[in-house]
Order: sequence, then structure tokens, then C-alpha cells
Amino acid sequence: MSDLRIPYQTLIDTFREILLEYAFTADRAELCATLFAKASLDGVASHGLNRFPFFLNYIQEGYIDVNAEPECTDSIGSFERWDGNLGPGNLNAHHCMGRAIELAKEYGMGCVALKNTNHWMRGGNFGWQAVDEGCIGICFTNTKPNMPAWGGSEPVLGNNPVVIAVPRKNGPVVIDMALAQFSYGKMHSYKNRGEQLPFDGGFDENGSLTKDPGEIIEKELALPIGLWKGAGLSLVLDMVASVLSNGNATHDIGQMEEEHAISQLFLCFYPPKLGTSPFSDKKLDAIIDNLKASSVFGDSDVRYPGEATLARRRENLEHGVPVDKDTWEHVLTLGPKLNS
Amino acid sequence: MSDLRIPYQTLIDTFREILLEYAFTADRAELCATLFAKASLDGVASHGLNRFPFFLNYIQEGYIDVNAEPECTDSIGSFERWDGNLGPGNLNAHHCMGRAIELAKEYGMGCVALKNTNHWMRGGNFGWQAVDEGCIGICFTNTKPNMPAWGGSEPVLGNNPVVIAVPRKNGPVVIDMALAQFSYGKMHSYKNRGEQLPFDGGFDENGSLTKDPGEIIEKELALPIGLWKGAGLSLVLDMVASVLSNGNATHDIGQMEEEHAISQLFLCFYPPKLGTSPFSDKKLDAIIDNLKASSVFGDSDVRYPGEATLARRRENLEHGVPVDKDTWEHVLTLGPKLNS
Repeated sequence: MSDLRIPYQTLIDTFREILLEYAFTADRAELCATLFAKASLDGVASHGLNRFPFFLNYIQEGYIDVNAEPECTDSIGSFERWDGNLGPGNLNAHHCMGRAIELAKEYGMGCVALKNTNHWMRGGNFGWQAVDEGCIGICFTNTKPNMPAWGGSEPVLGNNPVVIAVPRKNGPVVIDMALAQFSYGKMHSYKNRGEQLPFDGGFDENGSLTKDPGEIIEKELALPIGLWKGAGLSLVLDMVASVLSNGNATHDIGQMEEEHAISQLFLCFYPPKLGTSPFSDKKLDAIIDNLKASSVFGDSDVRYPGEATLARRRENLEHGVPVDKDTWEHVLTLGPKLNS
Repeated sequence: MSDLRIPYQTLIDTFREILLEYAFTADRAELCATLFAKASLDGVASHGLNRFPFFLNYIQEGYIDVNAEPECTDSIGSFERWDGNLGPGNLNAHHCMGRAIELAKEYGMGCVALKNTNHWMRGGNFGWQAVDEGCIGICFTNTKPNMPAWGGSEPVLGNNPVVIAVPRKNGPVVIDMALAQFSYGKMHSYKNRGEQLPFDGGFDENGSLTKDPGEIIEKELALPIGLWKGAGLSLVLDMVASVLSNGNATHDIGQMEEEHAISQLFLCFYPPKLGTSPFSDKKLDAIIDNLKASSVFGDSDVRYPGEATLARRRENLEHGVPVDKDTWEHVLTLGPKLNS
């Protein structure tokens, strides 16, 4: 990562102009660009700027239909089922979290199951979307197989990222985590630097735990969090997402040439409608205060999920969003290139 | 564990007679006894027979009010909030999962937040309760602090068990897992046998990962699943349970002399009401078939959560429930003892 910093608005403008070249309508280009830029703004460049060229590639290969809009196929009170029609994953997810928020504001809680969508890029965006509207937001997605079953020697489970977000005046709490201990992106970084992972991150060719990213990547044997526990959790979340959405499960996705047409679930609670509001913030502040007052080993600093995000966002809004210079320069060439 | 096997019905009868001595009403004694017996029947003796004497002790010390019934304090459509009134935790949880099931059958999904309850003993019971009624059931509970924050040197987070259950004709899938890699009960067993844990299970006095159960137990530094990920997950689940129930958070519980007055959440989806039913079982069978066909290291056998439970239940119904002889003989003395 170089020292180059780009204003947040410049990131949005750049992405938007390229997306317009890719036949996005103006509104959708603006939102899609903002979601990519926000990931980088919040320090998740892996699913922001750095992912953008891959996203465009998926469009060119026909996996993402830029003009496809999500469609409501079933509405049962506070529950809705939507078909993503293979549109851009971040736009579909943003729309469905938006519906879950609206349903929660009407009913107290709301749930949207989404099928036939694409990778939502940075899942945390949709957690922040929920807390910005005062909702507790929970969402998860299935993925292609990229982790083994417990004892297994081939990938059959998805790392199925989960987002849980809790609104709080003094800083929302937003956890955004895949069920693998380390992402393949992170493991590739360690491998490229010739480093071992700081903790076990998967299995070697004999099925033993290893910190060697190369061995893990080769056989796609990433470690589920909590060993057998994360493996089980991945399985049941895949079941819940695919059953409630009537969509594809991880093994269906594994049969495709590329990951697409995946299934997701969005669940929101709106505390004011549920009569918890007056007490929530005091309660949440007390939980955070207690956590942060915890004694620590060495000079580590106890942080809650989302705390670093908020600090980073403020800094990057003021000083510009750090970008990888090569990636940024590459992206700048992508818009015009299409016209050639 | 000795070879002694006791008929399932004898376990129920024995527990019930003792509970009647403890002033339970007949109906509640029967249900409470059945929930304890079912834990042992399904192979979770740690929260069945083996836990029963501790449960009685909690009653004697006044933490559990045997006659307290849960009370609905708020009803907002498919969401309800209940006060457990410090009644027996398994009865409260059974009642609230029952309400979540009823709400799901009426609305498609239903949610119950419960405060002021006690340890639910075996959480998996309530997952099986949901799938027996054809519901997807999700529930979790907070606990006293028993795991450190990431980097922390004292327990501040709960191991907050989570249950996710998916109904399936050919065998429901039920995961019942605390967010610690190993329970303290299991770590005590390893310690008593002079054995190391098979995987890292917590932190030593320097904050390094260790397999030594004695070191972990001494400072109560159990390892969250997935390291920082499970620590974050524990925090947000505590927030969701305590905010939605208006109940105690883990740090509140930590200030009490004993763990009680805890908070729980029960969430159900009823697929037939949500229009997913005709496809669900085929989809779930395909997921399970794919998992079980996975290639493995050595001669391990890939199993899904709940599979072993079902097999064990069948065997124990036929041949009797395996019990620890000393514990069983001790429990047999508990009823009459009260009269002395």
C-alpha cells in the first residue's frame, strides 16, 4: 500500500464514470460507485477499489447483468422474497437491506430472502446501512465452496460471510466476518510476502492445521472459525439462506464455472417500534465501557467491531482514502479503454 | 462413563419425583424432568443428568423460583417480549420457543426476547422443539463473563451458546454450540485425565494460545471460536439479546454472585407459511448428500450437526441411556434427602 490518498468524492466520481461506460443507468452508477468507494473509505479496499476491476470483468463475461433490477416474488407480512435477476450484487443487497429496514419500521422486525444475486462485495456496507436507519441489522450470504467439512480434504462449504450491526449513538457496533479464519485474499498477501500466517489458517495436504498460506491456498482448505463449529455454522447458514430464498445452495454454486446466482438473507429489528429504545443506548454504552475497561496483555488495546472503522472513516474523509497506486492507476485507464 | 444404562422413562420418572419434592407443580415437574432426561438421551449428559444436582442446588440457594411462570410484557405482532421471572431456565426457554413457533405459524416468522431467566441447560432441546414443529429455529443466550476480549487478560465476554435448527424429513440439522472452542466442563475432564486439549482452547498467563486445560481454567481465559471473530460475535449477540429483551447483559450478570437473570432470543421461520415448503426437503437432502460425499483425510466420516444425535437417541431409546454410575446413584438419593 503506497502513501497515495485520493479524495472520497474522486473515488466515487471515477467509479461512476466507468460504470456509465458499462451501461449502468445514472442512479445505479452513482449508488454502485458509492458502495465501492465506501468500502475503501472504511479501510476495506479488498472489497472496494481493489475489487472493482474484477467486478467489471464479471460484467464483461456476462455473469452480472448491469440493468437487472431485483423483483419481489413473495410478500408475507414482514417477510419478503426477492429475485436478484443476476444484477450487481451490491445493488441487490442494498435494495434488500433497504426493504428489511422498511419492513422493520412498519412491523418491528422485517426479513428479506434474496436469490439469484451476485457477490455483495463489502458486506459491512449493509450493516452500516441498517444502523444508519436505527435498525439492528443481520445479514449473511452463501458463497461457492471454499472450506472443507470437518475432516474433509476438499472444499465443500462456503465461507458465508455474516454481518451483525447494532445501532449506537456513540458509535455503532458492526461485525462483518466470513466464517473462514483468514480470507484467501489475506492469505495471498502473506504468501506473496513470504510470511507465515500469525495463527493456523487451514489444513495442509495431510489434513493437519498449518500457518503456511501456500499449502492452504493450493488445496483450498481454509480453516472454518472454531474448527468443527464454524464448519457446522457454515452448513446451517447455507441451508437457511437457500431454503428461505428458494435459491442456490453452496454446492449448486460450486457446479458453476464462476461464483454467481447466490443466496442471501437480510433481517432487521427496529428497537423504537419494539419498545426498547429509551434503554438501548445506556445499555450498549455500558457494555462497550465494560469491554474497553478490560485488562489486557501487554499494551494491546481492546476494540469493539466497527470502532476502528469509524476512526478510519473520519481520517480518510479528512485526508483522502489510501489507495494502492498501481491499482488506482489501472482503474483510471478502465473507462476509456471500453471505447477503443 | 460407566456402562450403566437406564431406561429413558426411568430417568424422567426419577427427575420428576425429585422435582415434586422441590415443590414443582405436576405439569411443570413432568416437563422439566423430560427436558433433563432428553439431554442425556441425546448424549448431552453434561446438561442432563450431570447438571441436575447443580440445578437443585440453585433452587435451594434461591436463584431459581420453581413456581415462577414467564409473563408476556410486550406483544408487537410477530414479536413478543417475556419476563422469565427467574423461573427454571429450561421451562422458560421451552415456553418462549413454543411462542416463537406459534408466532411463526401465524405470521411466517416469529421472535421472542426473554429476560430474567436462568440457564436453559441443553440449548439443543429448543432447536429440536422447533424442527419437531416444522420450523427453522434460531436461539441464543447470554451468560456470565467467561472468555477474554481479543487481547484481554480477564473474562469479560460470555460464551453465549447459539442454536440453529433446520427441519428435514430425513434428519433435522441442529447445531448447538457455545462460542468458546471448548466448554469448561470438557476442559476439566481433560485436566482430570492429565491430558492436553486436542486443539488450542484458551490463553496462558502470558496471553499465548495453549492446549493446557489447567492454565486456561485458572484464569478463565477460554478461547473464542475463530479468535477475534468469536470475541466480536459474542459481544454483538449479548447486545442483541439484552437490548431486545430489555434484560441483563453479560457484564451485569458478571456482577452477581452467581449466573442468573440472563437474556435470550428465540427466532422461528415456518417454511410452509413462507411458500418454500415444496422445495425445502429436496434442497436440504442435496446439501447433505453433497457434504457426506466429500472426500476426507484418513478414514474420518463427515457428519452433519444433529446426525450423531439422532443415531444416539435411537440407540439409547432401545438400550437405555448411558449414565455415570456415581452421578446416577447420587441423584437417586436427592429426593428423600429433602425430607430429612
